Amino acid sequence: MCEANAYILKEGKEELYLENVDVLVPEGSKIYLKNLFGEQKTFEGYVKEISLLRHKILLEEAK
Amino acid sequence: MCEANAYILKEGKEELYLENVDVLVPEGSKIYLKNLFGEQKTFEGYVKEISLLRHKILLEEAK
Repeated sequence: MCEANAYILKEGKEELYLENVDVLVPEGSKIYLKNLFGEQKTFEGYVKEISLLRHKILLEEAK
Repeated sequence: MCEANAYILKEGKEELYLENVDVLVPEGSKIYLKNLFGEQKTFEGYVKEISLLRHKILLEEAK
């Protein structure tokens, strides 16, 4: 499958936020995420980097 | 493979911008993209939506 895991970058460490992310929609200062299983989360912050081959979405909290 | 194609949404139509995108990095009002083959592009605008299962990155130009 081609989903990715979303992590929050906190003090140089990566903390798992949501697994198996399918959809990502930036909405102003927030990011709406939905995974394979229909689980939905809204993150207050922004996308730092996405690497699809590494199945990784890196998020950073709004300051 | 798990890369996605990036499209620009223009007047309701999707125009192919870059195929086989691996990396996406938002940088202020721009988005840096790199594909499987090392091709790099910088787009002036923002991410409207990403769907990994549909292998699709939808971009919109800055207004």
